[in-house]
Amino acid sequence: MMSDRVKQILSWYESDNPGTLANLRWMLGTGTLADTGKFVILPVDQGFEHGPARSFAPNAPGYNPHYHFELALEAGCNAYAAPLGFLEAGARTFAGELPLILKLNNHESLHDEKNPMPAVTASIEHALRLGCAAIGFTIYPGSALNAAMYEQIQALSEEAKSVGLAVVVWSYPRGEHLSKAGETAIDVAAYAAQIACQLGAHIVKVKLPSDHIEQDAARKVYEKENIPIGTPADRVRHVVQSAFDGRRIVIFSGGAKKGADAVYEDARAIRDGGGFGSIIGRNAFQRPKAEALAMLKRIMDIYLGKE
Amino acid sequence: MMSDRVKQILSWYESDNPGTLANLRWMLGTGTLADTGKFVILPVDQGFEHGPARSFAPNAPGYNPHYHFELALEAGCNAYAAPLGFLEAGARTFAGELPLILKLNNHESLHDEKNPMPAVTASIEHALRLGCAAIGFTIYPGSALNAAMYEQIQALSEEAKSVGLAVVVWSYPRGEHLSKAGETAIDVAAYAAQIACQLGAHIVKVKLPSDHIEQDAARKVYEKENIPIGTPADRVRHVVQSAFDGRRIVIFSGGAKKGADAVYEDARAIRDGGGFGSIIGRNAFQRPKAEALAMLKRIMDIYLGKE
Amino acid sequence: MMSDRVKQILSWYESDNPGTLANLRWMLGTGTLADTGKFVILPVDQGFEHGPARSFAPNAPGYNPHYHFELALEAGCNAYAAPLGFLEAGARTFAGELPLILKLNNHESLHDEKNPMPAVTASIEHALRLGCAAIGFTIYPGSALNAAMYEQIQALSEEAKSVGLAVVVWSYPRGEHLSKAGETAIDVAAYAAQIACQLGAHIVKVKLPSDHIEQDAARKVYEKENIPIGTPADRVRHVVQSAFDGRRIVIFSGGAKKGADAVYEDARAIRDGGGFGSIIGRNAFQRPKAEALAMLKRIMDIYLGKE
Amino acid sequence: MMSDRVKQILSWYESDNPGTLANLRWMLGTGTLADTGKFVILPVDQGFEHGPARSFAPNAPGYNPHYHFELALEAGCNAYAAPLGFLEAGARTFAGELPLILKLNNHESLHDEKNPMPAVTASIEHALRLGCAAIGFTIYPGSALNAAMYEQIQALSEEAKSVGLAVVVWSYPRGEHLSKAGETAIDVAAYAAQIACQLGAHIVKVKLPSDHIEQDAARKVYEKENIPIGTPADRVRHVVQSAFDGRRIVIFSGGAKKGADAVYEDARAIRDGGGFGSIIGRNAFQRPKAEALAMLKRIMDIYLGKE
Amino acid sequence: MMSDRVKQILSWYESDNPGTLANLRWMLGTGTLADTGKFVILPVDQGFEHGPARSFAPNAPGYNPHYHFELALEAGCNAYAAPLGFLEAGARTFAGELPLILKLNNHESLHDEKNPMPAVTASIEHALRLGCAAIGFTIYPGSALNAAMYEQIQALSEEAKSVGLAVVVWSYPRGEHLSKAGETAIDVAAYAAQIACQLGAHIVKVKLPSDHIEQDAARKVYEKENIPIGTPADRVRHVVQSAFDGRRIVIFSGGAKKGADAVYEDARAIRDGGGFGSIIGRNAFQRPKAEALAMLKRIMDIYLGKE
Repeated sequence: MMSDRVKQILSWYESDNPGTLANLRWMLGTGTLADTGKFVILPVDQGFEHGPARSFAPNAPGYNPHYHFELALEAGCNAYAAPLGFLEAGARTFAGELPLILKLNNHESLHDEKNPMPAVTASIEHALRLGCAAIGFTIYPGSALNAAMYEQIQALSEEAKSVGLAVVVWSYPRGEHLSKAGETAIDVAAYAAQIACQLGAHIVKVKLPSDHIEQDAARKVYEKENIPIGTPADRVRHVVQSAFDGRRIVIFSGGAKKGADAVYEDARAIRDGGGFGSIIGRNAFQRPKAEALAMLKRIMDIYLGKE
Repeated sequence: MMSDRVKQILSWYESDNPGTLANLRWMLGTGTLADTGKFVILPVDQGFEHGPARSFAPNAPGYNPHYHFELALEAGCNAYAAPLGFLEAGARTFAGELPLILKLNNHESLHDEKNPMPAVTASIEHALRLGCAAIGFTIYPGSALNAAMYEQIQALSEEAKSVGLAVVVWSYPRGEHLSKAGETAIDVAAYAAQIACQLGAHIVKVKLPSDHIEQDAARKVYEKENIPIGTPADRVRHVVQSAFDGRRIVIFSGGAKKGADAVYEDARAIRDGGGFGSIIGRNAFQRPKAEALAMLKRIMDIYLGKE
Repeated sequence: MMSDRVKQILSWYESDNPGTLANLRWMLGTGTLADTGKFVILPVDQGFEHGPARSFAPNAPGYNPHYHFELALEAGCNAYAAPLGFLEAGARTFAGELPLILKLNNHESLHDEKNPMPAVTASIEHALRLGCAAIGFTIYPGSALNAAMYEQIQALSEEAKSVGLAVVVWSYPRGEHLSKAGETAIDVAAYAAQIACQLGAHIVKVKLPSDHIEQDAARKVYEKENIPIGTPADRVRHVVQSAFDGRRIVIFSGGAKKGADAVYEDARAIRDGGGFGSIIGRNAFQRPKAEALAMLKRIMDIYLGKE
Repeated sequence: MMSDRVKQILSWYESDNPGTLANLRWMLGTGTLADTGKFVILPVDQGFEHGPARSFAPNAPGYNPHYHFELALEAGCNAYAAPLGFLEAGARTFAGELPLILKLNNHESLHDEKNPMPAVTASIEHALRLGCAAIGFTIYPGSALNAAMYEQIQALSEEAKSVGLAVVVWSYPRGEHLSKAGETAIDVAAYAAQIACQLGAHIVKVKLPSDHIEQDAARKVYEKENIPIGTPADRVRHVVQSAFDGRRIVIFSGGAKKGADAVYEDARAIRDGGGFGSIIGRNAFQRPKAEALAMLKRIMDIYLGKE
Repeated sequence: MMSDRVKQILSWYESDNPGTLANLRWMLGTGTLADTGKFVILPVDQGFEHGPARSFAPNAPGYNPHYHFELALEAGCNAYAAPLGFLEAGARTFAGELPLILKLNNHESLHDEKNPMPAVTASIEHALRLGCAAIGFTIYPGSALNAAMYEQIQALSEEAKSVGLAVVVWSYPRGEHLSKAGETAIDVAAYAAQIACQLGAHIVKVKLPSDHIEQDAARKVYEKENIPIGTPADRVRHVVQSAFDGRRIVIFSGGAKKGADAVYEDARAIRDGGGFGSIIGRNAFQRPKAEALAMLKRIMDIYLGKE
């Protein structure tokens, strides 16, 4: 039976059809955090984004596409997200075992640009054929090519919603007018969350922001209105507020592999700021499986308020 | 029953089908100004255009998408205009309560260009699915990409008209050959209104113009023909004349938040120049609700000739 | 009953269906010049191309879209050509009163380029819906974007012909390799007429050319073959020959408003050189109506051989 | 009844449907060279490519589109190739009289580029509507835009083949990395023929090559393998070999008007090298008709081995 | 009957329909290496890529398209891959004799670029019409145009899979940020294999890599994780691991013609590293047939473990 929290969350998605609500509910009702309204998602697109050795050599079983399905299942994640090839390679073996998110666009790093735009590498038809619950799509707000990405996700999400899929948007600011620090600045992260919500995303994924403010026009407002951004939890709270006052699911990514304590600290900040959870890739699959399972369990315990 | 003024206004739209006329009539018959032929519309796309903090921090309830539906309803506006995400987040709760305008394209400000072009972020199908009365679309006359925008609105408005939706065009001159002052110059504003009308818009929204003249070829004519542009009301009158001699609905936007008196003065100029009304965004939703309601009431009183 | 001259003209259009022939016949059979095979067409797209004040301030009733329908009707023109907005604003009132040509592409002058390309601002569906006899389309031979325009008119004219509409092509050379004088050079104008004919136009509109020769490769031929280009009538004759040896309707435009005598002289040259008539815009609608009607009557008298 | 040679030629087209084979057979069975497997084709697209005066002033009857149908018929050519406008202007009068090739793309010379790409100016639908036997298409191997042209002809030829039309490809090397001499170099011409064949052309048209070798990588091979390219016949033989070892029809164009003897010499080289014939434009239609007919007859006699 | 090895290989393709599996099985069950899970494929697209003389002059029978079908058949290859023209020219004669791979894109070398992108020169419809088992497609990871190629293969492979064709991807790193050595660097080759797999390829073809490492971010990982790349077999093993831990078929190409011993050494390294076989073009068809057959037999013997 659906928990009150899940009912509340679903009530925010006022314009969606029952098919899409069912898929959101599938993710909300799966794994260790089932029915809490919290999320831990396993994403594995780094083979495409950074190359295979950089992604999988630290924990070689990860070269095998089945490994990640198993990791997500055993850890009790809400969902597993990957590009076409990885999902195709396990779709029958793990059919119906856990919600899958087909990552519809990807960017490789043999070519590098100031204003990046990923390639669309899969389609709604693939997502349906592979039994996915949702599509995933990366936008780079701030890129000179932003309009093209927004138009792609507009078309894809219109199609996804019409066939009952949920839409997960990775919103990662990049581009010629943003400094490196600006890519994770609090004003920019909040803006990135807002854009994804206005584009119609059901679930938004942003990076945990720093307290840097990038845009002058924004700084004036943050100072004038005294918006609290001092602690990580403050900043999570501001991003969640920027996502329709908390009426959209916002989860946070942790970035490159780092020490376990830092990962737990992030999770506590996300929880305390009212965030909906984490998307944990390299910090999970680049560790030996036992270590990864222990870490993911502890993160889920944090979201469950056990520590 | 339809007032004579409303009948007259609808008579100008000679080529539209009954569905589109019904939606125009819905907007003309809604709110405090119902049946007067005057308009006050609430637009809230600044979250996408300027970012969430710059838009909503001054009045934090505005982070919540429901807030703006309520504001427009309580204030007696003719319609509420917003991007996909904001409308999706309230579409069921407020279904049929007031005419909605789905803003079909949007531009973010993390990337800045001399020749801007917004992204198409929603579709006619969305507008129908969400129960909207009209689509909204921004063009930037003067941008090097103007042709692409004109072709987008041509395709979208053809589709909109065929399914009985009305078409509202925001016509905001920008681009490499226009000075900053030129963007609100009287010759340029009148030209922007004409272009929107020729493209088939039912309702045109332009900025209240200054008395600056941007183009040399135009200046000669304004001087030779002695076109009165000295007062704001003169300039409104010229813009309305440039919109098919007053046979198209032209409304004016006020821009950034400013003192209430300045807002009232604008409204009086629009009324005295024969304009059809105002589109008031930041000046409404960035004030505390009570203050905003009072201001909107007074603007409507001005259009009703009460002061 | 169809005159022999009209029968002859229609016989040149060997590949068209009866619907298209009927629309050509409608234009050939309308107005003061009915059944003579001569044309005077009223085009009013200057509001889009140059702006409203530069176009209509000299004769303010022209701001009103109805004015131009009435002017064309009262003057006995063969047809009236305008962009979407102007036609939509009078389509019901004047339905069936005179042949309409929907101008399918337009170019604004807030942005200026060396290699221009107009925006497609209307469609075949609009032309049918508005009861038009023909579509109008501008190409800029010599523009770096020429191929894109040729491909647009190819697609649009294929569709137009299949639904029985006639195709009128404005062929106005422009572009980075053409001098200002070259835009109206005799070799370039003849080339522009040829291109429009090869693209399948039924009616071609070019500017009355000067005796300048722009291209070196052409000059050698004009000199070697002694092609007469000394008088305006010579040049009209050469352009008509370049339009499939006179087997396509070629009409000439007069350009900016000028003295009445100059306009009459042009008409005489067109007539004496075997041209099919004039397309008269600013010289008509920028004059007070009575004056415009008198001038148009005298032009038609010239084509009728009365002076 | 089909000659053995025609049967042999048709046998090479292993993947074509009977409709396309019938149209190839129509061309192979038409005119003075019927059933010999040899071709003389009249192409008249120079009005579009070079302008009307440069094309037709030397022999003024050529301004009239009917002239070229008549010339091709009276001369006993295998087919007549021209752009849309020229074919539309005679399609009914000459319906079924001789095989027509609709030239689907064209390039004008008011704008000049280092990396040219013609405009697609007609369609398969036009070719069917006008009763054509084949489509014609120009590619410019070596142009920076080569991929776009290859993709156009891929789409058009797929459609053409599916409706039973034959495909004739003009393969004319151009582009920023080719010297002027390189455009007709033997290695480049052979390469151009190979590309057209690999793209699926039924008939390939190249320029008669010189003995210049353009590419260093090719020169090494020509020298090492001792490929004979000393005489025009040698070069024709090499091009024919490069067109699937003679299993595709390759014809050669003569270029600008020149002395009759040079034209005959070309024809002898084509014949002696195993070429399939000539495509003769300016050398035919720029001469007075009697002279042109005599020349074409003598060329055909050469192909018939009479001299 | 299917061997256990073939069953195992097919089991990795979890998301494919029986039609595609049947075509993979056809290739796995054809020729000398039938049922061993090993491949030797004959590819002949060099006529398009390098020109006819450079490709075929060293062994002139290769100008004839039939020659390559015969060579592949007599040598006992698993499949023959070529562009549209070459397959069309033999499709009926050799129908059903051996699996054909239609190469869907090609790149010519008369124009050269730093960031290449081939032209799409054929379609799925052609592949079906010609009775092919698979489509072939080249991507250039690292090219500035990589996204466009990934989107093309995404669309084509979705269509191919839906109609039961297999998908073979040539993954050849190129582009402005890659050094010449980097194009065959081990990190880059492994990345290229991963990308092709993630894009959904059934069979991936890469170049045999060198021990050079191109990317700094990769070098750190190769050193830290001590990935063995010292011998050719090591590098093959790493590439195979990078292709979903060996769950996708990876074959290696040999490049330009070279001494027979070097070719055999490559084959041994591929076999010893767990590679699935070779794609041998110039080293086969540029040798006299008897010599080529002997070489191909010996390569197959190596894969059969006979030496």
